Amino acid sequence: MSFALIFRIQGFLLLFLGSTMSVPSAVALYYRETSFSSFIAAITINILTGLFLILVCPSSEKQISHRDGFLIVSLAWIFAAFFGSLPFLFDNTFSSFTNAYFETVSGFTTTGATVLGNIEVLPRSILFWRSMIQWLGGMGIILFSIAILPLLGVGGMQLYKAEVPGPVVEKIKPRIAETARSLWKVYIVLSALQALLLMVSGMNLFDAVCHSFTTMATGGFSTRNLSIESFQNPYVELVCIVFMFAAGMNFAMHYRLFHGNVKNFVKDREFLFYFFCLFFCVLLVFMVLNGSVYDNSLVSLRKAAFQVTSIMTTTGYSTANFDTWPVFTKFVLLILMFVGGSAGSTGGGIKCIRILLIIKKCYRELFYMVHPHAISSVKIGGKSIPENILRSVSGFVILYILIFITGTLAMSLCGIDLISSLSSVAASLGNIGPGLAGVGPYENFSAIPFFGKWILIFLMLMGRLEIFTLLILFTPEFWKK
Amino acid sequence: MSFALIFRIQGFLLLFLGSTMSVPSAVALYYRETSFSSFIAAITINILTGLFLILVCPSSEKQISHRDGFLIVSLAWIFAAFFGSLPFLFDNTFSSFTNAYFETVSGFTTTGATVLGNIEVLPRSILFWRSMIQWLGGMGIILFSIAILPLLGVGGMQLYKAEVPGPVVEKIKPRIAETARSLWKVYIVLSALQALLLMVSGMNLFDAVCHSFTTMATGGFSTRNLSIESFQNPYVELVCIVFMFAAGMNFAMHYRLFHGNVKNFVKDREFLFYFFCLFFCVLLVFMVLNGSVYDNSLVSLRKAAFQVTSIMTTTGYSTANFDTWPVFTKFVLLILMFVGGSAGSTGGGIKCIRILLIIKKCYRELFYMVHPHAISSVKIGGKSIPENILRSVSGFVILYILIFITGTLAMSLCGIDLISSLSSVAASLGNIGPGLAGVGPYENFSAIPFFGKWILIFLMLMGRLEIFTLLILFTPEFWKK
Repeated sequence: MSFALIFRIQGFLLLFLGSTMSVPSAVALYYRETSFSSFIAAITINILTGLFLILVCPSSEKQISHRDGFLIVSLAWIFAAFFGSLPFLFDNTFSSFTNAYFETVSGFTTTGATVLGNIEVLPRSILFWRSMIQWLGGMGIILFSIAILPLLGVGGMQLYKAEVPGPVVEKIKPRIAETARSLWKVYIVLSALQALLLMVSGMNLFDAVCHSFTTMATGGFSTRNLSIESFQNPYVELVCIVFMFAAGMNFAMHYRLFHGNVKNFVKDREFLFYFFCLFFCVLLVFMVLNGSVYDNSLVSLRKAAFQVTSIMTTTGYSTANFDTWPVFTKFVLLILMFVGGSAGSTGGGIKCIRILLIIKKCYRELFYMVHPHAISSVKIGGKSIPENILRSVSGFVILYILIFITGTLAMSLCGIDLISSLSSVAASLGNIGPGLAGVGPYENFSAIPFFGKWILIFLMLMGRLEIFTLLILFTPEFWKK
Repeated sequence: MSFALIFRIQGFLLLFLGSTMSVPSAVALYYRETSFSSFIAAITINILTGLFLILVCPSSEKQISHRDGFLIVSLAWIFAAFFGSLPFLFDNTFSSFTNAYFETVSGFTTTGATVLGNIEVLPRSILFWRSMIQWLGGMGIILFSIAILPLLGVGGMQLYKAEVPGPVVEKIKPRIAETARSLWKVYIVLSALQALLLMVSGMNLFDAVCHSFTTMATGGFSTRNLSIESFQNPYVELVCIVFMFAAGMNFAMHYRLFHGNVKNFVKDREFLFYFFCLFFCVLLVFMVLNGSVYDNSLVSLRKAAFQVTSIMTTTGYSTANFDTWPVFTKFVLLILMFVGGSAGSTGGGIKCIRILLIIKKCYRELFYMVHPHAISSVKIGGKSIPENILRSVSGFVILYILIFITGTLAMSLCGIDLISSLSSVAASLGNIGPGLAGVGPYENFSAIPFFGKWILIFLMLMGRLEIFTLLILFTPEFWKK
């Protein structure tokens, strides 16, 4: 383990993070908010700590080992959340460090769970930074391991394996740094396009930028207490649905689309699964809502389409208090929290490709029961999936469920009810945001006790880092020479 | 598929089932109950249908194919539940056929979920039959595929694979019929021993026999409305704890114990897992209950030990309304519904050995992340587990969870709350009996709508037949020539 190099990289990360804070500082300056000084203080600490780490950790090593990779990625999220929370701390946005750290972790992991009861009273620069954190987190998720680390001279493929949330590494372009830049461009273009369309729909510039930040990151922080519902604007909702859907797709597909490759959409099995799963769930929720909750079928469809897309892509926006919806629709949403977006998207959860693979794997088990001596391979789009990838995927899914169970067990010790425990864990581990009951869309996470907040912080990080990355740091195997 | 042979075997089953009904008939005669005539009618129909099936299905075939096996086992449970429900139907025990079939399936699958609000008003002979059904179901689970089918001239090992709930076929004695007789003896001896001890503890003969029937089968039907709680007798509870524990063990271990092989207990990894998991959960539940629910620590321990053992072994007796216990303890019980007993026991659930295997498999995945090029095998007690068994086990666990989710989704359409939906499905699929909230220990399943009852019937059968056995009948693969 080359700790010097590991911390040197964290140093560079802090330099970058500090420099990004100049944007909310400018917002503070524009609106003449006192939070300007909080940002300046935070920038100073970020830059100084960054420089300090770079100076005290001189590393001639160019090669990042396999193990270093896991530690770098995990520490990056933990560090970024700590140093990213400084503006909130200096501006007394939260009542405690735990709350500030919870909110910032929720931001960088693009979860969107909030401890804020009244969001609208906060200074605009603080709201801007809160949204921007999610955008940076989303950027991190797509690009961190394939762009920043290679710049430092690393092969990175092993890291890509640890970080990017898909079982199969997809190579769009041979060189990683180039791929990174390409995907980054896609992310920026889509964000700008959404902000523009939101403004056309009637949103002001500030809200449009903030919401495009949190949509493309599938984050879900809003500048309003009632999330997207407060705008009462079907066009805004439609734009959000389209861009949430886009954010839940593999960004490599967007890249190909920009280059005129449309055939991909009908050929990509994960995309088809993602699309039809979403479509089918919207239909189911619509049918239950229509007549029972909303009299107007157009309103039912609007509410169903928005909420299902928001939860499945793990964004977490709301246009209704779905906690009061019929049990069936709530359970559909709870299941979608586990499904999540596509691999290579900014979405969380187990991911569509893994769900698709385990369903096929289960069917193969039934096939083996009938033909015990047959040899059969699981195929996706005509291509056989290697057994070790299937093994790893089923291990991931089982581990995900085991962590969900353990997390819920821990949360239920905090004295909150079972539905709140279950859904807060599902929403944190899957990086969604709101859950049901005590952590529903009209509620927030402030009432969760201290102990519970730290469990959820850990779960948000665990979910974002695809479980393995963070979890292996707790195995003795990892620290052995 | 040799349907003649398949139905011929069902014919023999009905002859056997009809003959067992002579026992409750004798009980009816002894207590001079009018239900005697119901039993005579049921016996007549059983015997006649049995003879009819045997006569119209003359089969010279001696060889039962792999596929026939699945159909025979699945049909046996479905048939037994139908023809076993006749005494209830003739005696008007239930308000509808659905209720009668639900109760009988719950009996033969040793689930123990009831639709009866007031059990104590029923004739003794009916209560006796209700308990005896579970005992027969338990017998079926241990012996059906390794005893009855070989008598008909089948090799049976392939069926054993389909029926006996463990991933590794254990050979106690080389010949299957002999093994079957040995385990049957163990089952009868333990049942008799329990009945004796319950009488020593102060129970009357009738209650003692009925409860020993439903304990050894991990069934959980009681002759009292408040289950074991109504006896208010710590000795009765202790006897039940010991025998529930025994019923949740692999019966092969009892057989070995009877032959003086004690070393087995400390060597068998599944037994150790079963024991320590139970012990640890009792401790956890005790610590939470003590002081918060019960003031007396001895009472807390008694209640905790009884309820944890009852749920983990999938018996389903209660000595307290655990639905009013703290959330944490309820969630522990809910998790144990999934864990279940040992392979080769009468218990349901996923089974301890599978849980142990998937935990080891998950740890291996973490190991592979650190050492991507290593080759490692999962070991149980020093022995490497073949990869195809691991694959099959993880397939089973994922399928179990997928069915649990699908089942809950269907139940939540019935208009019952989420906790009732979740727990009724967990309790049915795991063959436990009572769940939480609307199907808690002080409640019953009568309020579940018609549609929901049939879902639960299907889930009880699915759980009892280790999912695959019943599920493959729904694949096109199974019916292909």
